[in-house]
Parts: sequence; C-alpha cells; structure tokens
Amino acid sequence: MTDGFEDLGYARADTGRERRLGLPEVVYGPGKTSEQIIGVVRSLLAANTGPVLVTRLSDEVAAAVGAAVPGGQHDPAARLLVWRPAPRRAFRVVVVSAGTSDAPVAAEAAAVAGAVGLDVRELRDVGVAGIHRLLAEVEVLAGADAVICIAGMEGALPSVVGGLVGCPVIAVPTSVGYGATFEGVTPLLAMLSSCAPGLVVVNIDSGFGAAVAAHRMAGSR
Amino acid sequence: MTDGFEDLGYARADTGRERRLGLPEVVYGPGKTSEQIIGVVRSLLAANTGPVLVTRLSDEVAAAVGAAVPGGQHDPAARLLVWRPAPRRAFRVVVVSAGTSDAPVAAEAAAVAGAVGLDVRELRDVGVAGIHRLLAEVEVLAGADAVICIAGMEGALPSVVGGLVGCPVIAVPTSVGYGATFEGVTPLLAMLSSCAPGLVVVNIDSGFGAAVAAHRMAGSR
Amino acid sequence: MTDGFEDLGYARADTGRERRLGLPEVVYGPGKTSEQIIGVVRSLLAANTGPVLVTRLSDEVAAAVGAAVPGGQHDPAARLLVWRPAPRRAFRVVVVSAGTSDAPVAAEAAAVAGAVGLDVRELRDVGVAGIHRLLAEVEVLAGADAVICIAGMEGALPSVVGGLVGCPVIAVPTSVGYGATFEGVTPLLAMLSSCAPGLVVVNIDSGFGAAVAAHRMAGSR
Amino acid sequence: MTDGFEDLGYARADTGRERRLGLPEVVYGPGKTSEQIIGVVRSLLAANTGPVLVTRLSDEVAAAVGAAVPGGQHDPAARLLVWRPAPRRAFRVVVVSAGTSDAPVAAEAAAVAGAVGLDVRELRDVGVAGIHRLLAEVEVLAGADAVICIAGMEGALPSVVGGLVGCPVIAVPTSVGYGATFEGVTPLLAMLSSCAPGLVVVNIDSGFGAAVAAHRMAGSR
Amino acid sequence: MTDGFEDLGYARADTGRERRLGLPEVVYGPGKTSEQIIGVVRSLLAANTGPVLVTRLSDEVAAAVGAAVPGGQHDPAARLLVWRPAPRRAFRVVVVSAGTSDAPVAAEAAAVAGAVGLDVRELRDVGVAGIHRLLAEVEVLAGADAVICIAGMEGALPSVVGGLVGCPVIAVPTSVGYGATFEGVTPLLAMLSSCAPGLVVVNIDSGFGAAVAAHRMAGSR
Amino acid sequence: MTDGFEDLGYARADTGRERRLGLPEVVYGPGKTSEQIIGVVRSLLAANTGPVLVTRLSDEVAAAVGAAVPGGQHDPAARLLVWRPAPRRAFRVVVVSAGTSDAPVAAEAAAVAGAVGLDVRELRDVGVAGIHRLLAEVEVLAGADAVICIAGMEGALPSVVGGLVGCPVIAVPTSVGYGATFEGVTPLLAMLSSCAPGLVVVNIDSGFGAAVAAHRMAGSR
Amino acid sequence: MTDGFEDLGYARADTGRERRLGLPEVVYGPGKTSEQIIGVVRSLLAANTGPVLVTRLSDEVAAAVGAAVPGGQHDPAARLLVWRPAPRRAFRVVVVSAGTSDAPVAAEAAAVAGAVGLDVRELRDVGVAGIHRLLAEVEVLAGADAVICIAGMEGALPSVVGGLVGCPVIAVPTSVGYGATFEGVTPLLAMLSSCAPGLVVVNIDSGFGAAVAAHRMAGSR
Amino acid sequence: MTDGFEDLGYARADTGRERRLGLPEVVYGPGKTSEQIIGVVRSLLAANTGPVLVTRLSDEVAAAVGAAVPGGQHDPAARLLVWRPAPRRAFRVVVVSAGTSDAPVAAEAAAVAGAVGLDVRELRDVGVAGIHRLLAEVEVLAGADAVICIAGMEGALPSVVGGLVGCPVIAVPTSVGYGATFEGVTPLLAMLSSCAPGLVVVNIDSGFGAAVAAHRMAGSR
Repeated sequence: MTDGFEDLGYARADTGRERRLGLPEVVYGPGKTSEQIIGVVRSLLAANTGPVLVTRLSDEVAAAVGAAVPGGQHDPAARLLVWRPAPRRAFRVVVVSAGTSDAPVAAEAAAVAGAVGLDVRELRDVGVAGIHRLLAEVEVLAGADAVICIAGMEGALPSVVGGLVGCPVIAVPTSVGYGATFEGVTPLLAMLSSCAPGLVVVNIDSGFGAAVAAHRMAGSR
Repeated sequence: MTDGFEDLGYARADTGRERRLGLPEVVYGPGKTSEQIIGVVRSLLAANTGPVLVTRLSDEVAAAVGAAVPGGQHDPAARLLVWRPAPRRAFRVVVVSAGTSDAPVAAEAAAVAGAVGLDVRELRDVGVAGIHRLLAEVEVLAGADAVICIAGMEGALPSVVGGLVGCPVIAVPTSVGYGATFEGVTPLLAMLSSCAPGLVVVNIDSGFGAAVAAHRMAGSR
Repeated sequence: MTDGFEDLGYARADTGRERRLGLPEVVYGPGKTSEQIIGVVRSLLAANTGPVLVTRLSDEVAAAVGAAVPGGQHDPAARLLVWRPAPRRAFRVVVVSAGTSDAPVAAEAAAVAGAVGLDVRELRDVGVAGIHRLLAEVEVLAGADAVICIAGMEGALPSVVGGLVGCPVIAVPTSVGYGATFEGVTPLLAMLSSCAPGLVVVNIDSGFGAAVAAHRMAGSR
Repeated sequence: MTDGFEDLGYARADTGRERRLGLPEVVYGPGKTSEQIIGVVRSLLAANTGPVLVTRLSDEVAAAVGAAVPGGQHDPAARLLVWRPAPRRAFRVVVVSAGTSDAPVAAEAAAVAGAVGLDVRELRDVGVAGIHRLLAEVEVLAGADAVICIAGMEGALPSVVGGLVGCPVIAVPTSVGYGATFEGVTPLLAMLSSCAPGLVVVNIDSGFGAAVAAHRMAGSR
Repeated sequence: MTDGFEDLGYARADTGRERRLGLPEVVYGPGKTSEQIIGVVRSLLAANTGPVLVTRLSDEVAAAVGAAVPGGQHDPAARLLVWRPAPRRAFRVVVVSAGTSDAPVAAEAAAVAGAVGLDVRELRDVGVAGIHRLLAEVEVLAGADAVICIAGMEGALPSVVGGLVGCPVIAVPTSVGYGATFEGVTPLLAMLSSCAPGLVVVNIDSGFGAAVAAHRMAGSR
Repeated sequence: MTDGFEDLGYARADTGRERRLGLPEVVYGPGKTSEQIIGVVRSLLAANTGPVLVTRLSDEVAAAVGAAVPGGQHDPAARLLVWRPAPRRAFRVVVVSAGTSDAPVAAEAAAVAGAVGLDVRELRDVGVAGIHRLLAEVEVLAGADAVICIAGMEGALPSVVGGLVGCPVIAVPTSVGYGATFEGVTPLLAMLSSCAPGLVVVNIDSGFGAAVAAHRMAGSR
Repeated sequence: MTDGFEDLGYARADTGRERRLGLPEVVYGPGKTSEQIIGVVRSLLAANTGPVLVTRLSDEVAAAVGAAVPGGQHDPAARLLVWRPAPRRAFRVVVVSAGTSDAPVAAEAAAVAGAVGLDVRELRDVGVAGIHRLLAEVEVLAGADAVICIAGMEGALPSVVGGLVGCPVIAVPTSVGYGATFEGVTPLLAMLSSCAPGLVVVNIDSGFGAAVAAHRMAGSR
Repeated sequence: MTDGFEDLGYARADTGRERRLGLPEVVYGPGKTSEQIIGVVRSLLAANTGPVLVTRLSDEVAAAVGAAVPGGQHDPAARLLVWRPAPRRAFRVVVVSAGTSDAPVAAEAAAVAGAVGLDVRELRDVGVAGIHRLLAEVEVLAGADAVICIAGMEGALPSVVGGLVGCPVIAVPTSVGYGATFEGVTPLLAMLSSCAPGLVVVNIDSGFGAAVAAHRMAGSR
C-alpha cells in the first residue's frame, strides 16, 4: 500500500484514486501556482486513463496551464479545464437552478458532470416564487436518473423538487443573496432541514461536489 | 402625557394603548404570577372598551385567572384567555400551516386574530413536499385579505404562497424540526431571505405577533 | 399552467406575476449582465401593463440599460430604474429612518413605494437617542396608512414607533454600525424581538422588500 | 391535481406520494398524538401498496399505535414501526458507524433501509483513531452499492471512507460528543467540508434521511 | 505580596480585596456547597470590616448558611445574603426596568446596590412600547447619580434613557423573551450597538455586576 | 418639546443634547459627506457652548471640513476633529492598552477624553503575557478616577486591572488578532464574562464610547 | 494490519493502541451500558499490560462495573474508574484552576494524570481577579514539567501562566459561567487567542484530554 | 519586579521573557511600522542572547527591517525574519500537512521551529482522502518527538495521526476551504472534538503557535 501516489515534493498526486474510486483525482485550482498545477496534471495524465479535471481556475491560470499541457478543453463559465473527457453514459442528470444569479454554480455542475460522462440537461430560473415555471417541466424531471438542485436565498427549491420525483436529489446551496442569507448559510441549513425525504446536500457553491456525487450514483448502477 | 398608564407597583398597565393603537395592551403570561395577571387584566378592562387578551397561559394559571375575573373565554389549544372579543369585521385572514406539528402556533394565530375581530380561515398540513395539497387551495388563498403562513424546518411555504397571491403574507417560523433547524432559526432566516417579494416576518413561534400584525393591516383599510 | 412565463434561455421571465400578484416581476440587478437585464425588461414591458423596476443598479449598468430601453427613469440614490410608474393612490406610507447613514435604504424604500403608486412621505434622522425629534412628528405618523421604519445599530426605533401608531409598521434593519452590530444582524434580531406588538420585519437593508410589503397592504384596502 | 391527498382535518395525508416518489409518505412521530398517527397510518395503508413507516416513536406510543393498527413490526432500538416491509432488492447498503454511542442513529438507518427493501450490512465502531479497524473491512466496503457513514465528534470517518470506495457515501453527523461538538454541528460542518470528493450529507442524527436517500439511489438503478 | 489571601484548601479567600478595591470579595453561590460558602463567609467576615455578600442562592442553601453564620439578612427575591450592610451614602442609583419579567434582575441590582451603601430608587415596567410611561419619570431620572437600565427582548430602553440623562447609564440585558432573543444575546448586542453615547454594558442578567459597577462609580466621587 | 433640534433636511442636529446630557452631540463621520458634516458642525457650534467633535475621519475629509469651519484641531492618530475643547477638570482617566496594535483605539479614547475635559494619562503595551509590566505601574493605576482598559486577542487585561483598583474600569475590546478572535468578538465576550466584579464594557474598537462613558462618570462627581 | 482489535459486536476494542501509543484505549463512559463497559474493560485488561480507565461515570454505573471487574479504583469526584494505575514517573504536572467551580474538571485532570503515572500537584482558586494568589505560587509553577491550566468565564488564567513559565501549558476551558460565557465557548476562544506564545488548548471541560496530552509530552522525554 | 522590560514609548519590550520562558519575546509584525519593529528588535537583541524573530512580515517591511538591523535571515515563504537562530537540538518535530494549500502555514511552523533549535522534518499533502499516502510514512511519524499536524477543510488529519503515534500531536487548523469551512472554524472545532485522545490545538493558521508549543515541549525534556 506504499505505492499509489507520486511524490512531487510540493504535492503527492493520488495516482491510485482512479483504481479505488473509478475517477482520477480532481485538482482544486485555488492556492496552487500554474507550475504546481501543470506538474500534478501531467502526473495524473500519465498514471490514469480517465478524465483529468482542474476546477475553479482563473482565465489567466487556465491559459498558462492549457498552453503547457496540450489537449485540455477550457470552459470559462465553469472555470474548468478538462483532458480526456469520459464518453457519455446513459445516466441522465438534470441540473435545476432557482435564479439567474445561480448560473456559475450550475455551469460548474453541468460541465463537471459532462466531463465525467454523465448525460446532462439544464433547467434554469425555476425558483419557487413562480412555481408554475417548475411545474411546466415535470416531464423533464421525471426523466432524470438524478437531479442536481441549485438555489441561494431561502433554498426552497429542492424541497419542492424532492416532493415531485423519486430519484436522488442533490441539493447545492449558493452564496447568492444578501443580509440574512449569510453567504449561503441560510440555504444550506434550509436544505439540511428539508421536509422532503431523502434529500442530500453538498457544500455551499459546490457544483463540483454535486457532479461527483452524481457520478458516484451512476457508478452504482 | 403623564397620564395614559396605571401604576400597579409591579407593573404599569398601558391604559392609553387602545386610544393610540386601536387595541388594548395584550398581557404576555409567562413570568407573571396569577395575582399580577389578575391585577393587570382588571386595570385594562376598566380603562378600555375593546378586547383584553392574556397569551401563553398554562391551564392552571388560566383557571385561576378565569375564576377571579369573570367573563373570560379560555382556548387551551391556543393557551389564550379573552374577555370582550371584538365583533367580526370583513377582513379575511387565512392561516396556512405547513405541518401538523405547527398546529399550536397556528392555533394561537387563529385564536388571537378571531379575538380581535378578524374573519379567520385555516388551511393545515400543506407543506411544500406535497405541493399539490397547497395548489388545491388556490381559491381559498385568493379570497384572503392577508395570509399568515406558518412553517418550521426549511420554512419554504411562504415563498410559494407569496408567489401565488398579492395580498400581505406574514411569515411565522416555528421551532419544529431538529438538528440543523436550530429551534426555528433556519426557517426564520429562510423567510427573511425569501425570493418572493414583499414577505414580512415575525419572531419564531409568534402566532400572536402575526395576528396583531394582521389586525394592524385590517385597521389600515 | 405551462404558460405564464417567457423562456429567455438564461432566465424565465415570470410574465404571469402581474396577474397573480398585481405587480409585474421586479428585476434584481446584481449578478446579471446589462444584456440580460435588457432582455428581461423588454419581456416584462411587453407582457404586462404595470410598472417595471430594476433594483440595486450601478450607475454604469443603469446608463447602459436606460439607453437600450427608452422611457426609464433613473434614481441614482435609490439605485433604481423605473418604466411606467403607477399612478399615485390614496395610501400614505411614511418612511422613517433613524440616522443619516440609513439614507440609502430609505431612498430605495421611498423610490420603490412611489414607483408602485403609494403616497410617500419621509422623516429622517429621528433616532431614539434624541427621542424628542420623533415625538415632534407624531401628527405625521398618525396620518400614515403604513410606516416603514429603518434603523441600524441597536434597531430600537420601530419599537417606539410601534407603540405610537396602530397602523402596520414594517421594520427594516440596516447594516449601519460596527463591531457588535454584525452588519445588521443586531438590529434584525432586535426588531424580531420587539416588545411592541405586531411589528413585521424584512431582510437587512431591504428597502425594496419593505416597499413591496406596503404595496401588498395597500392592495388589500 | 386537486386529488392525491386525504384531508383528515388535522393532517393531509399525501396519498399520491407513492405514485410520484415510489415510496409512501413516512410518518414523523414526534409532535403527533397516537390518535393522529393511527389515522394517518390507516389512510396511507389504504391508499398505497408499499411499506408504511412511523419514525422516532416512544415505546408507549408505539404500543398504542401497534395495538390499533394490526400487522406492524416494532423495532425499539430504531424507534420504528413498519407495516408491509418491502421485499429485499439487490442493492447493498453498508451502514458504517464511528463509535458505540452512534448506535441509535445507525439502528434507525439500518432499520429504515431494510424496511424499504435494501440489503443492509452494518460495521460498527470503526472510528479513525484506530484506522486499522476500518482498513480491515475494505472488502466489505468494496461490495457496497452505497455506504451510509455515521459519526459524531469530529466527523472524520466519511472523508476516509470516501477515499476508499467509489460508490455513493451518505454522511450522517450525530449529536454525540460534548463541548466544541455543539450537538452535532461540528461533524455536520466537517462532513460538508470534506476533502473527499462527492460526499453527500443529511441532517444531524438523521439515520432516516440517509436510508431514504439510499432508497432513491437504488431506485435509479 | 504573598499574603492577602487565606488558603481554605478548596478556595483561596481574597482577603486583601477590601484594601485594594474598597469592597470585600463577593461570594458567587452556584457550584459551591453550603459548607464551602460558610467557610469563605467566615474568612471574609474575619479579615474585612465591610459588607459580605453571597449571590444567586437558593432558599435552601440560604437557610443553611444563614443558620451557620449569624447576622445575615436574606432577600429571597434577590437571592442574596448580606452581613454588615454598608451605611447609605449620598449616591443615588435609579434602577429602571423595561418589563415585569425583568423583576428578578432588577431585584438583584437594587439589593446589592443597597447592601454596598448606595441610595436606590426603582422604576418598573417603563418599556419603550409605551414611551410615555418613561417620559413621565424624567424628573426621577434627572436626580440620578447613575442609572442601571434593565431590559430583555430588543433591549431598547437604555438607548432612550441614555439620550435623556447625562449621568452614567449601566445597561443590563436580560434573558427575557423567546425565539430571536436567544436567551439575552439580542438585547446584549443591541445595548453594545446603542446610538446613545457612552452607555456601558454588563453580562446578561447581571444585576450584581451593574450594582458593583455603580459602587465603583460612587467610590470615585 | 418640538424644539431642541434643527432640521437640516438630511439630518436633525440634536441641539438640545448639551442641555440634557452636558455634552453637545458628537458627529460620527463615516457615511456622511463633507458637506453634511460641515452643516451639522456649524449647527452644533451655533446652538451649544461646549466642545464639538467629529470622529472616525479620513485625512481627506478632515482637511475639507477643517478648511470650511475654522478653529478645529485635527488629531490624525485619533481620526478626530475638535472645536472648543473643554477646560481640563480634576478627573484622572488612565488609558491602559495591552499591545502596540491597540494603539489606534487608545489614541481615540485619549483624544476624546482630553477634548471633553478629562485629565488623561496613557499606559501602553502592558499585556498579561508579561504581567510585571503592568504591576510596575500599580501606583499610576491607583491614582485613577477611572481606567479605560483596551485589549484585543483574549481580552484578559481588564480582569487583572479590575482586581487591582476599585475605581470604574471601562473595558474596550479591539479587533486586533486573527483566527479565533473573530474581529474582536472573543475579547468582547471575555470582558463581559470577567471574574473581576463590576467591569463595564463598550462596543468593539469604541475608544470614543469609553471616553464618553468616563465623561458621564466625571459628571456624576 | 487486520489484527490489533477485538470485535465485541457492539464495539471494536482497540487492543493495539497500547503498542502504538504507549497507553491502552480509554473508555468513554456516557452512552454505553454497564454490560458494554464491562465487556470492553475485560478485553482491554486481557490484551494490554498498562492502566485501563473508564471516564465520566455515574456512581451507579461505576458501582456495577466495579463489582463485575475486580481491582478497579473509583474516584467519584473525578467520575473515574482505574485498573492497574501506572507507577509514578518523574514528570511533574501542576494542575492550576481559576475558581472553586472549576473543581470537577481539575479533579478529572489530576486523577487521570495520576493514573497514567504522572506526578501531580494542584493549585486551586488562583483566578486573575486576585493575581497575587497566583504570584505567590511562582515557585510551584517553576517546578512543573507541564502545567494544566483550567478556567471558565473569561479564561484569562492561561495567558498569565504562559507568560510566567517556559514549560508546556495546556489550557482547559470550562463551562463555568453564565450569559456571555456560552457554556465555555468564551474561555475556549480566549485561550485560542492568547497573547502568550505556545499555549495549547483542549475541548471544553476536558480534564481527561489535558491529562492524556501531558502523558504524551512525558512520553517524549 | 519593575525591571524586566524596556519602555520604548510605543512599546514595552519584554526583555525578561528569555529568563522566564527560555525564549526571547517574538515580535508579531502586523500593525507595527518598520520603525517600531526595528526598535523592538534592537532592544531584544541587546537584552537577550537567544534567537530574535519577527513573524508575518510583508516582503517590503522585511527588506526595510533587514537593512536596518544586520544579521537577519529572511524566509519569504514563512514571512519570517530571524537573528541568531538557535543551534539544533535533538528534538525531532515532524510537520505534517494535509494539502498543498496548507503550505504557507506549514512553512511558518517549520521555519519557526528550526529557528528556535528544533530538528524539523516535513511531510506534505497526506490528506485523509488518500489515506495510503500517510500510512506510507508511519516510520517517519514513529521517529517524531512531536508532530505538528496542519489541515483545513474538515480537519480530520490529526485524528488519524493521533491514533498512530504516542508523542504529542499539535493540531493546527487552517483557513483553507470555502463555504462551510468558515475560514478555518470547521477544522478548529473538529480538532477540538477529536476522538483521538490527548490532541492539543492552537489558533487558526498559527504555524507560529504550534512551533513555540513544540519548543516548550522540547524544553521540558
């Protein structure tokens, strides 16, 4: 068990993760230099066969890394770099977001889910203050294998969605709002307290986490 | 301005409140002895002509006070004692509650609203995890002059109601739930953060506060 | 029920809101591009007959949007753009603020209330540390159909106002203060805990929310 | 859409939930009288064909309800009553708990998961301070379709498990601990902040929520 | 400096405090046995000449201690035992409280202030929702050398009093209220955030602390 | 009572405050334009005879205001502008600070205290981790009529000082520190929880508040 | 690595901990039945040679366990059961506590430290409001190899001690206090924010944790 | 006791600290001017014989101070200036960090520990989501006299390390993470709540505090 990683000095690339988890380690961009990211990406590309992702990248760092490691695709809205995206599988993820301000989180969720091979569809701006906008899409929801449900402010959308469909609903609170939303704490607590049974929750603004959670669910099919 | 109250030693009954606010002072029961409550009630009955209420009473204290001051009506579910309830006015308040555990707060809101002369109708157990239960009652909501909307847990119900009707919606968070609901803090914050425009919020479990707020709105008709 | 909105791709304009709530959807500016705002405003102007508002705009975005969609009026102090303001109704809203630092929130409340047709009057800098400044205006308060009461720091003003008048009092906490005011949390909690009966509260700094709440109350006249 | 529930006066049994979600409504016991529970259970048994569950029951209430509605099985450790448990499906859920004090939450998770037809296996007392106890069970973990991972105190166990297996890991914080664990808030926050990708989290002590989440995942197979 | 205390094994009575601070050490009752209190009181009576006080006593412990150490006076409302109360000085402290539920804290403040020789006057139930009750007593306030101002809920009273008089105003938040008052946190924060200049604040429910603070101020005359 | 203030439109200068409190209103600088400050200062200088202060000024605003209203003295370290400072009275305030980073708060406390006529002496950098530095100054402390005690981090200094002297001790928490000091919350809570009897506390970083509190105490001599 | 524990069904006794850490696993009593404790104790006694401890025991459970497993010593003040206490080593731990109410935590720290072979000395009631009581014991502190420093309320004592001695200082916050102490949160934060360099902190009320930390330090001698 | 410090006006250099604690006072850089730092450093160099350190320096201030006081060594990654580093002692500190983003805190811990004479070894990027990376280094951990264990996010690493080695483990939470990590609060609470016995914790991001704690432990050898 002493193998399974590569010691780069500044980092230990977890090269065994693909074998254990079915997906190579994903690189979290913030707090790393372009050089560090390049080194880790090269290590992961060499040691694995699946998709390699770097998240939360600024355009500048993305350009530098992309130039150094050929073959990567940059999605600026999602702040994501991807090499070797996985082929699409028959697992439909519907990414539902409550308001237009939630778009960056939805973009990350959709892009990561697509990169790891899930079949993604998006529904935007279906917040509960105009509930008919959501009810008009019940058919789309019914076709989902999993729903990623993204909302800031009061975070009510997953409770309604969770009462409409029986598939897994992954709730993502966002930091959208002001005052009593406390940078996403309010929707986070609301989602954890939901009256809809069996909702699951990830960290604030973590479109990435929700997409990987969906990948785990697809893997268990 | 030195008049307008009666000094009972242990309390200063605000006998001028009916003239200023249109409603006599309401007595908050907890932390007062039966004797103190009896004294304040007698003072308020003598100095005003409108309804006199005591809230949050145990059955024991209610019995003692009711025996000492004749004419009071006791509503145990609402923990309320009322003398001289106001005649019913043409202002319809619909009291909507999300779950059966919210019943005590709903009972207080309905009983106080009725005692101050509002026309009350109740809708119970219409939480958002089964949104069709609420949508089946859109006609009832449309007939409201004001809605008192009561919910614990994630507190999502007022956001949906606030998107369905244009009349005032008074949101009441309850302490129902466990864990991340933090005794009502979560629904309180959710209601304050609502994406539905123009919701207003009162303190946790304050069915009383919501009913008096509705009375203020009726008075401004 | 599948109609009632227009799908713009990045947003679903709730074109049915005027019919349901008596007021077209209001556009919250932050987090949207000028192009997105322009698109939503055009959709709302086409589908409704009443006032269309965009809130919390920077001067730059307001200029861009105003140039693209003729007929809008820009109020920089209130950070508001308005098309087709509603005719004034006989519902008097008095906007009371505690200190000069609360002026931006008061400006938003007054401007939105005016735009949706309410009859607005302002009282500024009447904080409770010089209570005679408020008591000098009791006549103005007595003429209100609703009071919007704005305060930061300890948030005491609504409690005093709520004891002076019987009409609805909508309390707005502001983020004015430092240290133990916690960006408005302290006045928010104080207003929710008020000893004055029947106060209602909106989110921190939400002059907009208070004005729409007043509009709901006027609508129920 | 006006059907799909039965109005019992004190409650609206969501009789359409089985059709929408694949599982009848589950009754949350606290805050309801035995009579109310009996009424809802009868309604749900009549309107659905699947398992009917009541959670968080005291032994007294369980005895009263069980006597009134024949056919129920009572699991005192899990505080659960079940009628018509679902036949076992080929979806293996491994319920892993960190310490012996987490046993009640683990019992609820295991009992609910079993009642809704999942194939349950338990691993107890494998907390990270003796990590070899967990590593000895890697084979059991590898056979899971989903892992429910329960921990109080610092809530570290799901991070380790999430790095060992690729299937869904549902983290359940418990209120076990004292001082800086704050009744489960600390493990809740730790689990949401986990460095292991794609963990999902439910409310504090919610073995029930985790089991229903697993059921949703099984349903998507 | 190695003297100035007596080592009783379980406690080190600070026998030098009267010399340094002008007042003997005061014994905080909770968490001590009757025997421990008796020992400390005897030590303090022997080593000092001024008043000796024990605070927050249950009636049972007060009876036991009072029987063992003659000459003590028990004030049950204030939960206080006093030996050798100080002669009254010409320093007038007005103890103002907002509501009848604040009475226990006001009683402790008044009793301790009297025991250490201050000239105490009380004003009760003058909360800001009926501001005329306070304004009727401006003359009493004007005669104060210091005001102790006690309030729960929104804690607004000290801000108003601090704007009426120029003497020191010691604000005491109480744990009276429910929901968003958070056991006194809300009035505590409100008092610290007051717009009235130069207010000072003590711990929640600490009538004792306020009285000793007043004693310090009198000592500096 | 309708007099006692001057309505400037954007502000109501409380011209009666000097008569009521013995000190003219102090102008809090942040959130006001130079023009607004100039207007209020002129109003206060005209209506009062005592010192007029503006606090928390940037150098730019101070220069503009100072140029427009002659006679003001600017103290950049204290961010204070003063006109007509009061003559020095025989009331000694010792301003004690724990660390060099607390200097700005100490400067404000000392400058304001001096401007309102108190006799100020400063002791700097006497934090409790080198307790001998404080004990070397016991004589200075013994000569105080009041001590203003300023500390960030763990806020322990007032507890030690409060056990050494019998005069009033006004504790000022500062936002100095990082991590678990939470911008001054930790020393604030520590000072409120002090084991030293009769400490009083003001808001975080409020050197101004402490100085005015000392002025109130001096006034009551 | 699959050995090193014994699977008791309800628990996995970590029998390898003595080999890895130099001290057998300690049993935390709360939440376990007497039978479970007895089983784990027997397992640990059989698999190790060092001391076996059970903490936080009620007298009833201690009696039952003590009767079933001979040779245990019960310390009721420390709520501790010990079998095979370790021989005393030349590592002096001084347990310093601020007030008499901190005695239970001090008792646990001292008893556990003694049971694992440390040389314990106690100093009680040396809080900072009478700093001379601590300074009188500087010689005792100077002889320590480690100091365990216990305080509630403002938690200032470790900062002073940490400035007097160079050996390790382990700070233990206690839940002693009321109001703004928040059950020990205030001293916890204060200790973490200490200006004395190199203090270390354990959980609230964790005399046990402090003693084991001291054992780790002794072990590294 | 009046000696032991040098009064520089703006600061009191604690020149006696080396004698009392075995290490000269360390200068905390933020909030001090270059001139102030230079003065204190000169005072400490003159009055002591051991290492003198300044922490948390920007490159600009470090350059200015280094130019004025010859002989200092600047470590930019650790933001540290050191004069007269101590000779290396036979006390091995292993600095373990969970992720690459924790590198700045690890650098400070390692640099300070080295400067005060400890024998430092680093292990980086061994977070628990790839537990094999840590288990591969058990031999390195077994050779430690103390471990400094640094982690952000869920802060789980010290619990695992604390179960592997018997030497002191000093846990350092970092502010690495987003959302529910709350700038380091989550790992702080997790470390305080650890199930591994005898962990000790320092402030968020305090690599400095951990290194000085290790120095205290080395001194007690």
